Amino acid sequence: MDKFEEKTTKTTEIFDGKIIKLQVDDVTLPDGKTSKREIVKHPGAVAVIALTSENKVVMVEQYRKPLEKSLVEIPAGKLEPGEKPEITAIRELEEETGYTTNNLAFVTSFYTSPGFADEILYLYFTDNLIPLVEEKDLDEDEFVELMEVTIEEAETMINEQKIHDAKTAYAIQYLRLRGLR
Amino acid sequence: MDKFEEKTTKTTEIFDGKIIKLQVDDVTLPDGKTSKREIVKHPGAVAVIALTSENKVVMVEQYRKPLEKSLVEIPAGKLEPGEKPEITAIRELEEETGYTTNNLAFVTSFYTSPGFADEILYLYFTDNLIPLVEEKDLDEDEFVELMEVTIEEAETMINEQKIHDAKTAYAIQYLRLRGLR
Repeated sequence: MDKFEEKTTKTTEIFDGKIIKLQVDDVTLPDGKTSKREIVKHPGAVAVIALTSENKVVMVEQYRKPLEKSLVEIPAGKLEPGEKPEITAIRELEEETGYTTNNLAFVTSFYTSPGFADEILYLYFTDNLIPLVEEKDLDEDEFVELMEVTIEEAETMINEQKIHDAKTAYAIQYLRLRGLR
Repeated sequence: MDKFEEKTTKTTEIFDGKIIKLQVDDVTLPDGKTSKREIVKHPGAVAVIALTSENKVVMVEQYRKPLEKSLVEIPAGKLEPGEKPEITAIRELEEETGYTTNNLAFVTSFYTSPGFADEILYLYFTDNLIPLVEEKDLDEDEFVELMEVTIEEAETMINEQKIHDAKTAYAIQYLRLRGLR
């Protein structure tokens, strides 16, 4: 049994959408009292830290409807059911950036919002990018702009809150720790 | 107008809970087509990177119902309506760790899951911890275990996936970049 485990006594399904599901669990707490937990179910995601031969970081700008603004982020995407994260990572890299790679290294994984969601993000690294001859299609409701930035430019974008998400902030620290200047 | 802006034509409220809200927005895409966006509204959160005088990182272990397991994380908590993030940060530090501080530095902020949620996390740092004489109460449905770990121990916990969330992974890199050994 995990520390402070909360036993589910009832699960109420609230919403089953295109991307997320929402449920409310009635739970018994470690002290025997009861509470409710609001839980978002997500298929999981991947992101890729991709360095060009000029040591620039590949980024995509896209509109993030929950924030009502566009952000600059490392390439990322959701897992398809049954798809291995490495495969998703290469697919999203190809679709969003026009590069592929035959050399993808696993960096780490982490939960993005463990208080209310089960989303896990698998993070990869490559500095061996191969341009695709023919562009791939994005999802039909997806619009992104590609850019390649130095680490100094990325840090300026963090200060300007143009880069403002956890995975990209983590990625920039990761590159600094690898000695990228 | 922000790049690739998506105009809302209709908002459908699905759920209004204790912590999160869920809505589905009908949107017009940049190419004039339509789509739906599933959006989780969250009040925002704070987290504190807290170093003891022995250069140990203050951590709390707690059960994360969405993951059905317990994780070790830096102290964190949700914003109360109208509360300044610095105030939330000190309140959560006091409640979860039994320390307070009069010296809290803002590190950064980031969105945790910008694809489906508006949660923003404000991250602070302190290495000036003052033990409270009297323990403060946690929320009544909150159970946490306090621990203080070296950075090497924290990195072992990352490898064992006992530390497995974005903010804590970011925090450990942050301490490494500050030169903590």
